[in-house]
Amino acid sequence: MSVTKSKNIQQMFQDVRAYSEKLVAGMEIEDFILQADSFVSPTKWHLAHTTWFFEKFVLTEFMKGYEPFNEQFFYLFNSYYETVGKFHPQSMRGLISRPTVKETMAYRQYVNDKVNELLDTTEMTDHLYELIEMGLQHEQQHQELILMDIKYNLSFNPLFPALFEPKESTNVQAPELSFTSFEKGMTKIGTNGEEFAFDNETPCHDTFLNGCQIANRPVTNREYLSFIEDGGYEKAELWLSDGWQLVKKEQWEAPLYWVRNDGGWSYFTLSGLQPVDWEAPVTHVSYYEADAYARWAGKRLPTEQEWEHAMKNEEIKGNFMDHDRYQPDAHYHGARFEKAFGDVWEWTQSPYTPYPRSKPLDGALGEYNAKFMSNQIVLKGGSCVTPLSHIRLTYRNFFYPHMRWQFSGIRLADDPVES
Amino acid sequence: MSVTKSKNIQQMFQDVRAYSEKLVAGMEIEDFILQADSFVSPTKWHLAHTTWFFEKFVLTEFMKGYEPFNEQFFYLFNSYYETVGKFHPQSMRGLISRPTVKETMAYRQYVNDKVNELLDTTEMTDHLYELIEMGLQHEQQHQELILMDIKYNLSFNPLFPALFEPKESTNVQAPELSFTSFEKGMTKIGTNGEEFAFDNETPCHDTFLNGCQIANRPVTNREYLSFIEDGGYEKAELWLSDGWQLVKKEQWEAPLYWVRNDGGWSYFTLSGLQPVDWEAPVTHVSYYEADAYARWAGKRLPTEQEWEHAMKNEEIKGNFMDHDRYQPDAHYHGARFEKAFGDVWEWTQSPYTPYPRSKPLDGALGEYNAKFMSNQIVLKGGSCVTPLSHIRLTYRNFFYPHMRWQFSGIRLADDPVES
Amino acid sequence: MSVTKSKNIQQMFQDVRAYSEKLVAGMEIEDFILQADSFVSPTKWHLAHTTWFFEKFVLTEFMKGYEPFNEQFFYLFNSYYETVGKFHPQSMRGLISRPTVKETMAYRQYVNDKVNELLDTTEMTDHLYELIEMGLQHEQQHQELILMDIKYNLSFNPLFPALFEPKESTNVQAPELSFTSFEKGMTKIGTNGEEFAFDNETPCHDTFLNGCQIANRPVTNREYLSFIEDGGYEKAELWLSDGWQLVKKEQWEAPLYWVRNDGGWSYFTLSGLQPVDWEAPVTHVSYYEADAYARWAGKRLPTEQEWEHAMKNEEIKGNFMDHDRYQPDAHYHGARFEKAFGDVWEWTQSPYTPYPRSKPLDGALGEYNAKFMSNQIVLKGGSCVTPLSHIRLTYRNFFYPHMRWQFSGIRLADDPVES
Amino acid sequence: MSVTKSKNIQQMFQDVRAYSEKLVAGMEIEDFILQADSFVSPTKWHLAHTTWFFEKFVLTEFMKGYEPFNEQFFYLFNSYYETVGKFHPQSMRGLISRPTVKETMAYRQYVNDKVNELLDTTEMTDHLYELIEMGLQHEQQHQELILMDIKYNLSFNPLFPALFEPKESTNVQAPELSFTSFEKGMTKIGTNGEEFAFDNETPCHDTFLNGCQIANRPVTNREYLSFIEDGGYEKAELWLSDGWQLVKKEQWEAPLYWVRNDGGWSYFTLSGLQPVDWEAPVTHVSYYEADAYARWAGKRLPTEQEWEHAMKNEEIKGNFMDHDRYQPDAHYHGARFEKAFGDVWEWTQSPYTPYPRSKPLDGALGEYNAKFMSNQIVLKGGSCVTPLSHIRLTYRNFFYPHMRWQFSGIRLADDPVES
Repeated sequence: MSVTKSKNIQQMFQDVRAYSEKLVAGMEIEDFILQADSFVSPTKWHLAHTTWFFEKFVLTEFMKGYEPFNEQFFYLFNSYYETVGKFHPQSMRGLISRPTVKETMAYRQYVNDKVNELLDTTEMTDHLYELIEMGLQHEQQHQELILMDIKYNLSFNPLFPALFEPKESTNVQAPELSFTSFEKGMTKIGTNGEEFAFDNETPCHDTFLNGCQIANRPVTNREYLSFIEDGGYEKAELWLSDGWQLVKKEQWEAPLYWVRNDGGWSYFTLSGLQPVDWEAPVTHVSYYEADAYARWAGKRLPTEQEWEHAMKNEEIKGNFMDHDRYQPDAHYHGARFEKAFGDVWEWTQSPYTPYPRSKPLDGALGEYNAKFMSNQIVLKGGSCVTPLSHIRLTYRNFFYPHMRWQFSGIRLADDPVES
Repeated sequence: MSVTKSKNIQQMFQDVRAYSEKLVAGMEIEDFILQADSFVSPTKWHLAHTTWFFEKFVLTEFMKGYEPFNEQFFYLFNSYYETVGKFHPQSMRGLISRPTVKETMAYRQYVNDKVNELLDTTEMTDHLYELIEMGLQHEQQHQELILMDIKYNLSFNPLFPALFEPKESTNVQAPELSFTSFEKGMTKIGTNGEEFAFDNETPCHDTFLNGCQIANRPVTNREYLSFIEDGGYEKAELWLSDGWQLVKKEQWEAPLYWVRNDGGWSYFTLSGLQPVDWEAPVTHVSYYEADAYARWAGKRLPTEQEWEHAMKNEEIKGNFMDHDRYQPDAHYHGARFEKAFGDVWEWTQSPYTPYPRSKPLDGALGEYNAKFMSNQIVLKGGSCVTPLSHIRLTYRNFFYPHMRWQFSGIRLADDPVES
Repeated sequence: MSVTKSKNIQQMFQDVRAYSEKLVAGMEIEDFILQADSFVSPTKWHLAHTTWFFEKFVLTEFMKGYEPFNEQFFYLFNSYYETVGKFHPQSMRGLISRPTVKETMAYRQYVNDKVNELLDTTEMTDHLYELIEMGLQHEQQHQELILMDIKYNLSFNPLFPALFEPKESTNVQAPELSFTSFEKGMTKIGTNGEEFAFDNETPCHDTFLNGCQIANRPVTNREYLSFIEDGGYEKAELWLSDGWQLVKKEQWEAPLYWVRNDGGWSYFTLSGLQPVDWEAPVTHVSYYEADAYARWAGKRLPTEQEWEHAMKNEEIKGNFMDHDRYQPDAHYHGARFEKAFGDVWEWTQSPYTPYPRSKPLDGALGEYNAKFMSNQIVLKGGSCVTPLSHIRLTYRNFFYPHMRWQFSGIRLADDPVES
Repeated sequence: MSVTKSKNIQQMFQDVRAYSEKLVAGMEIEDFILQADSFVSPTKWHLAHTTWFFEKFVLTEFMKGYEPFNEQFFYLFNSYYETVGKFHPQSMRGLISRPTVKETMAYRQYVNDKVNELLDTTEMTDHLYELIEMGLQHEQQHQELILMDIKYNLSFNPLFPALFEPKESTNVQAPELSFTSFEKGMTKIGTNGEEFAFDNETPCHDTFLNGCQIANRPVTNREYLSFIEDGGYEKAELWLSDGWQLVKKEQWEAPLYWVRNDGGWSYFTLSGLQPVDWEAPVTHVSYYEADAYARWAGKRLPTEQEWEHAMKNEEIKGNFMDHDRYQPDAHYHGARFEKAFGDVWEWTQSPYTPYPRSKPLDGALGEYNAKFMSNQIVLKGGSCVTPLSHIRLTYRNFFYPHMRWQFSGIRLADDPVES
């Protein structure tokens, strides 16, 4: 392996690991162990679990005589262990006050030092490189989760605490909605590429598309408000059956985090309670809401293949985690596809299934993605809490259709105009 | 419309309506109102609801001065009404002892007479024809549900009651498992045909398939037993994540209705508790079990497109409801694809989604199928409780992946041999 | 044992057994297996279970060579068997369509014949006498349950079926509320008597009462309506903490079975939906409602000892099951204590606990009552669905404080006037 | 009011307030917000809520121009506010990371300063005195809750953290079990006394007792182990019906906090996982377990009146919070009634009900105790986490019969020997 590539991964290791700590620098110790539901984790757990990954898959395998920081952390910060007795460990992460935040940070430092020592003293192999790369991608996923989860956890505090300074709104008006047409025909989906990708993006394969139109930008908060005000949440005929039952059971009447305020709406952000930025993309909507909105608008959601085909030539730039904004914004640039990347994960209509001829990875890392391939829906494009260097055209994110705590949004599609 | 076609539908009306009553002829009055869970309905309800369909969509629309049998039945036997107060009407169907079975049968007779009178005295139009045809297809769906549901309901009785005489087993050995290969290439899926089809089967459209192999027959009880005995239900790595949680929560260890007996296995059938017919197709497995079995066998499930493509030239015959067997059997004929139709609904790996450019029907019938297009999986081919005249190559059945009370089975597929 | 006493029990056996069948004579077969919740049982089960009691405790013990009607009924109709697998048998009673009602009646006849044969041919002993007496008391309890349960089960039918002809209302005005004072002092509670009593009524023991006042009649529907209209169900300060949580969770706003109708109220009775008889005692209230009403009225509920002490000289007559009314009525006779017995079970403030020096019975019958002595409240006096011959001054009925399907009502008490 | 009495309360204010802070001095910040279930509260909440009590009932009422530390704390730390939307505030206390522990301590200091200022500058009245006294009693209750709750919260950590240094075991053998007899007759129960008491202890009233025997000491861990080893948790006939259902549902097989270890038992204490002290009183048993143990031992639990009558002349001393042990111990002194006070709260058989002629307090403090008088059981005598100055002979503690996180134990009673 080239020295440059090897040096690069060492630099990336330092950068990514440091970024996690930057993200949490403004938190109080009390914030680190909040866990409001079993589908979110405490910040402390994320910081420890990503560290455990390097300890488990890199240090214990490659560093001779490695002594773990604390044997018990292997159990506590492993995400894969099974139910113990009647308590599901995942929902109990918020009950683990010890090790403290300080000890957890020492654990990070210890592992960082050891990995750096390893990289300084060992010859880089492809296998080692891949494991570190996987560990960093894994940590980037957890950076996004740290922000999603802490937002969810803080939202239960009636004081609406702010982790970050609010960014000023741009007051730019979103461009008019328009659509670009794509002819029917064969296309290539997925990757066999040189660059890092998860196993669920492979192999690259041929697909036939029946033609479609794709919207120039995501649906805005203003547009979504029209749906609300038109009684969207009260019309059963707009909803998938499973979605409608949820609407009634959960009494949904707006996206997650929206708060009615003196006849208007605010929303909770990582900068506290803020006025809704009406020109920014709507976010924190479930698949059911995205689908109902599209039906209300006389459109539909794109398939993941249509989305990937349409965005093939779009540059990957935009409002990512690296912008320190952590909320979709109202910057528009007159592009054919505004905000194709960043701002909000865009719901497709495609259930998350394996690509033709895909093969699972071997070993413990092998169960990485395929085992989640039921009942989930693919989202594309990354969001305002995704690290820029983590996203790709072929990236497939996935969430259950009822979930809303991710920064998910809506890009409309349509069938082609009949000729 | 031709007189022949018009006469035919009248004959079909009499046949299908009479068949429903034939199915329940052996039931005790007490059996008719059993409802063991909210996803099944009492037999009485099925008999009344299918009747309501004709009353609502045919008689009140086409027969001048039609007087309903009982105004209140409009409410009671309508499947679409929404939650009343805190009780979900669907789960309360088993609590409605009145009208009695006798009154329900009188209701059927009344509506039958009126429809016959209408057909005798009114000129048949396309619209009327379609509504009657839809009503009959609807009744055939409920004939299958009557058998599925009563089996489920009776299964809770420790006396294992039998509704029908048991059929003797064939003692034929299933043919060896083999696979037929299909090349990659374009194919047509769905229908625009002249024959009746549900909206979810349209439009006929082009699809590209990546090539596959399809098994010659469904997985047998004997093969499935090997999976059980190999610890299939205890190996997390074989299961989708959602499925594994269910296995543990529900303590699944065999297909639904299997009962451990002196070290061996029996199963509950509509003819009571019976020894397992080891050479017959396994049935009453969930999607998770079908998927786990396939992974254990080193194979996969087919996509619905692969299945439809493979079975294009198969004749539609086999062990259907009309055979009065109501249980998969072990008849084999040396065909390329044994039991492609009948015996068991075959799980595909395809989530139930709309076909490209599909359009919903208008009006109340319009919500028929599309609103169920989330979280469900497509099954193909019909079963031993499906009426023969109800099934088609393009027929798409769908169930949630956790469901097992339908007569579902497994046909394996594989990627093509690498060349 | 005297021949007379022996003859009497034989006559009682015939009378009580026949009465059960008289109660259900107007039911449709479909009604017999309704079970709307796990705390109620189907009528068929009651009829079979009371029969099982004689088979199990009398015939198998005293009749040489007794052959059971059906071995499996021992399992099916035994109320004491434990949970089988994950299904609680009690909540599954409504799923047992076989044996049919007809077979169940044949079972009753078979056991009746055998018991009569036994009584004709065996010399009566004290032990046999006691078991038959216990069996009859047990059957009378289930007669009350048959009526309570079928009322609950039918109440879920939006057609409000009627089992019995409605009785005309008396239109008598309830006498003005007044109180009788009792001095503090010692009194005797419970029984050691010759007459039949359950073990929970023994032994007779000394108690010191601090003095009280007891109301002349139960609270009427009209009075209870004032409580409703005064916002009784919205004022947390009137309620026990556990009760208030229930009020909010269950959205209680009136007694069970009350139905709002065009701005007024009706209630569901065993004679269908009827206008509320405002002068009759309120019924189907929980302990929490009785307690909240009393607090609202500036009074309290009596202890069970106060109630028993106060009613010592009251004659046992009134509106019992034998009146075929099955609903509290508005007959008043100017008595010091109107309706002390019959009409409604009167909530006391006393948790159900053992009497001093009480001893449990031996054997299976021994667990009869004592094991229910937690979390329940004592009620006194019998109701309109209690057989007259079943009630006694010392009778202690008991229900959980949240339960409302029994015919429970309210008699107010107060501390003595300070002198 | 005398200057001495006024000075005393000022000293008590400083002592009690300081004690709360002493209790938590060894905690990590992360420990302060743990909340493992809705029936426990985070330590931080207890510290703030007890402070809120003084702010609300003393400062805002008696100090002219008092400015609250933070208006929002009135909402956050009020235990009485009702459900907001679908979230029950009580179960969300663990989600409130802000205010931080540091801010909470500043809040305490602020209120302490203001109360001290008030007491220095205002003339003490009876009313002010009573409110401060009530506030201190309230804080002492929460001191016990702080220890109960943090023990419960830490018990979910598989590392078994210790808050305090373990105390050495005494290795003293418990004295042989013996009983003291009490004749039947009248006695006085409750208090009208000069000393502070809660409203539920009043008024003092006459009661007749039927005679009893009371054990010389609580049941030990060794004795309780015999019950376990004799299959106590598997014998339905030993249990109250409600208790037995709980045993099966929760799979209880030992007291709370007991952990099976290499064939033996340890238990979790506030000093971490420790070997069981076999001669010490068993604790963390539910009422159901206490009752089942007593039945197994051929005895019963005492009524609260029997307990109070028996202990009338016992000195109030023993293993209280002030001993810093926080776990029952095995010190015995040869007294007639060992450990009548301290060590463990002793379950009586008496449901928690109002005393004859009791009257609720007026106003917000009026709902203090009476509203909990359903479904709970009285316990007597205080425990190893009760402040010595908080307990009295007439003190009535109460818990639901299924609860085990309080330091509850068992003292046996029996009926008198028949003469």
